[in-house]
Amino acid sequence: MAAKITPRGKDYSQWYIDIIMEAKLADYSPVKGCMVIRPRGYALWENIQQTLDKMFKDTGHSNAYFPLLIPESFIKKEAEHIEGFSPELAVVTVGGGEKLPEPLVIRPTSETIIWSMYKKWIQSYRDLPLLINQWANVLRWEKRTRLFLRTTEFLWQEGHTAHASQAEAHEETLKMLFVYKSFAEDFMAIPVLAGLKSESEKFAGALQTYAIEAMMQDGKALQAGTSHDLGQNFAKAFDVTFQDQAGALQHVWASSWGVSTRLIGALIMTHSDDKGLILPPKLAPEEVVIVPIFKNENKQQVLEYAHRLLKQLKTHYRIKIDDDEASSPGWKFAESEVQGIPVRIEIGPREVNENKLQLARRDTGEKLQINYSEAVDTIKKLLEDIQNNLFHRALMFRKENTHELTDYKEFKRIMEDKPGFVESGWCGSLECEAKIKEQTKATIRVIPLGREDDEPKKCIYCGNPGQYLAVFAKAY
Amino acid sequence: MAAKITPRGKDYSQWYIDIIMEAKLADYSPVKGCMVIRPRGYALWENIQQTLDKMFKDTGHSNAYFPLLIPESFIKKEAEHIEGFSPELAVVTVGGGEKLPEPLVIRPTSETIIWSMYKKWIQSYRDLPLLINQWANVLRWEKRTRLFLRTTEFLWQEGHTAHASQAEAHEETLKMLFVYKSFAEDFMAIPVLAGLKSESEKFAGALQTYAIEAMMQDGKALQAGTSHDLGQNFAKAFDVTFQDQAGALQHVWASSWGVSTRLIGALIMTHSDDKGLILPPKLAPEEVVIVPIFKNENKQQVLEYAHRLLKQLKTHYRIKIDDDEASSPGWKFAESEVQGIPVRIEIGPREVNENKLQLARRDTGEKLQINYSEAVDTIKKLLEDIQNNLFHRALMFRKENTHELTDYKEFKRIMEDKPGFVESGWCGSLECEAKIKEQTKATIRVIPLGREDDEPKKCIYCGNPGQYLAVFAKAY
Repeated sequence: MAAKITPRGKDYSQWYIDIIMEAKLADYSPVKGCMVIRPRGYALWENIQQTLDKMFKDTGHSNAYFPLLIPESFIKKEAEHIEGFSPELAVVTVGGGEKLPEPLVIRPTSETIIWSMYKKWIQSYRDLPLLINQWANVLRWEKRTRLFLRTTEFLWQEGHTAHASQAEAHEETLKMLFVYKSFAEDFMAIPVLAGLKSESEKFAGALQTYAIEAMMQDGKALQAGTSHDLGQNFAKAFDVTFQDQAGALQHVWASSWGVSTRLIGALIMTHSDDKGLILPPKLAPEEVVIVPIFKNENKQQVLEYAHRLLKQLKTHYRIKIDDDEASSPGWKFAESEVQGIPVRIEIGPREVNENKLQLARRDTGEKLQINYSEAVDTIKKLLEDIQNNLFHRALMFRKENTHELTDYKEFKRIMEDKPGFVESGWCGSLECEAKIKEQTKATIRVIPLGREDDEPKKCIYCGNPGQYLAVFAKAY
Repeated sequence: MAAKITPRGKDYSQWYIDIIMEAKLADYSPVKGCMVIRPRGYALWENIQQTLDKMFKDTGHSNAYFPLLIPESFIKKEAEHIEGFSPELAVVTVGGGEKLPEPLVIRPTSETIIWSMYKKWIQSYRDLPLLINQWANVLRWEKRTRLFLRTTEFLWQEGHTAHASQAEAHEETLKMLFVYKSFAEDFMAIPVLAGLKSESEKFAGALQTYAIEAMMQDGKALQAGTSHDLGQNFAKAFDVTFQDQAGALQHVWASSWGVSTRLIGALIMTHSDDKGLILPPKLAPEEVVIVPIFKNENKQQVLEYAHRLLKQLKTHYRIKIDDDEASSPGWKFAESEVQGIPVRIEIGPREVNENKLQLARRDTGEKLQINYSEAVDTIKKLLEDIQNNLFHRALMFRKENTHELTDYKEFKRIMEDKPGFVESGWCGSLECEAKIKEQTKATIRVIPLGREDDEPKKCIYCGNPGQYLAVFAKAY
């Protein structure tokens, strides 16, 4: 009867899968590595989409749509790009019953097809900046997959911008990184570190990759969004030039940036507990659920009261009522907890008689009794409180599990015993980075922005003078 | 300088392509048969999506997402389905550098993958109805393509519903047909005929296909949406059963229904003229454009006045200002006409001095001068007028080009000279239908709903007693 969710403490990975299954967010599909996003999971994605889409439009971007299929030769035009993506490609070799003259790959990302079009659309500085975003499915052949976090096909948005100068492209790269950071923190209630990726972790084809990184409840990092300064790499690969104001021909400067359905995995793993999902009110498909509790003799009275409340709250909140007579109140309470609905209103004969409501918060389990007339205002405040509490709870957790270290033995011990974020000096060599990864499975998540003035510490691995402050963690 | 649009009278097909290119709605892609939807075209699609999505949700549907790739064996499970779709499939044979054990096809439509999941989700009558919609890209290998109307990849929505009885599935099929009809008429301002398809035109795998059909300005029909009663065909192919209230196992009953980016083609071809696009206000990305007209000596004054108006109208309308100083007012007027913006506000020094505004409607070209203070109310009324006028203009055109005929010679003459819709009796035989198609290129578009009580006329081809009233036309 109650949902079967493995406790986090027992098996964190199984807990994650159980939540997805019990909350009906997604399901395995018959195609290996691909998932089905069920209505309750897709409703979350729609809320993420709508919020981000508005943020993109408010920063001057327009949506467009480019083809799913890309000629194989295009992918090969940018040397690093093909090296990075070729092991992950799905290839169409037959169309309309005939072998294709050139194989077509399903987009793993769309830089190449988009820059082949930008060549047609950009001639002069007057055509710049070109600020386009696409909501689309992409496909990367993955060996090991996990629902939402890493699937062969996933949904995402990819912004692709073209600029007249390096400075402008770089500014855009950072602007969108901070759009992602705001979205993660203000809507998903997930604190994130924003920073630069090391060379070994950057996007195949970028000059620089920036990312936001979140800490999951098992102390592992999850990359939640990336923004790339592409320099002139794709403009050169596709020969996209513009006439500048002085009349000279230059290659165009570019950025690209994306977030995906992986964000839903981040949401689950940041906030939820052993009872089920916990969702930030701003993104929850329903903010409130009403559960009427009645027996035959008071059924009409309780239902009338509950529906009167529903009608009144409907204009203020995303709300539903669970008045199915085939299930017990206890089952409905558990179900609302599995689904992560932020506020539950319980209405029994006593509440009706006293003109009261019983509220339960999903995040803390706290209950409070209020007068019917206070409903609208109290719920507003409660939803704000829950949103803030989730963010601060996650922030506290990250603080508790972030360690500033100079000793590599301590570093190894932490990564083994109770992984978290480690801030250390790094000399900047690929070798030290690789050794650390080999020995601890921890990688450099970011070189955090805003910490450039910190005194550089010596490299945690080799002890040579540090070039960077780096944040290390095991990662999804 | 002005847009290069071939007049409709000269070359209708070229006129259509010119409008798409000049209004920057779409572009050809490097992949044969696939198109790029540019920001102005995509903005139209977003408005279509948002409106329809709300209508789907208001009728109880939820969105979900199913995989792009379908095992080839699934497509073969429903006999008619594979016969209909096999010539159009794109096949992935290589993934992650290796030949796949079973080829995967890119979805041409998702009945098979969805019903394979419904098998997991449906056990009891309590799981029904299941009302799911998906917004997705699909791919059908087409030999001859035309931007928006027929492309290898296109964007669409596909509803897939599961029901406990034949009657309920049929009711859903018709309900969604009429949702499409309302959307076409009330938002796109396109009058449509709703009716049943003949056997030869129905969806591969359906019991019955219903469609809405619109008349384009060249008198040809365009199928703008379809709704299928699938009976138990897919439930049987995927063995999807449920326990009914009496405890007996039954196969589930189904419907599916879809509209696509083809609707944008219908919009263009129904309303536009030789100057460019004409868009119904309810779906236009911008309802209003302000064009300030100034010389150096009155620039500041005119721009201030125009921006004051912009600020005031912004809260009421989707509006933009074209105050680029590098282009002339004449060029901007032409541009706003190419883009199909319903209302243009022209502001010169005279308007500023007299506290007036000059309005121009895109649909009739009519101009009117109003007081500044009347702007909000007048524009509201004007937009409603334009929306209504477009619908009635299209309805009049359809009436003028619809012929009730009993004489096959006359039928042939019309299809040759000036195609339109022909209402005739039909005996119901595949043979007569095929002969008519062969001789005139006209097909049965629909057996219209709501005309069942009309006295059946004799078959237009064979002269035998008519079974149906059928609407014939040449079609896109």
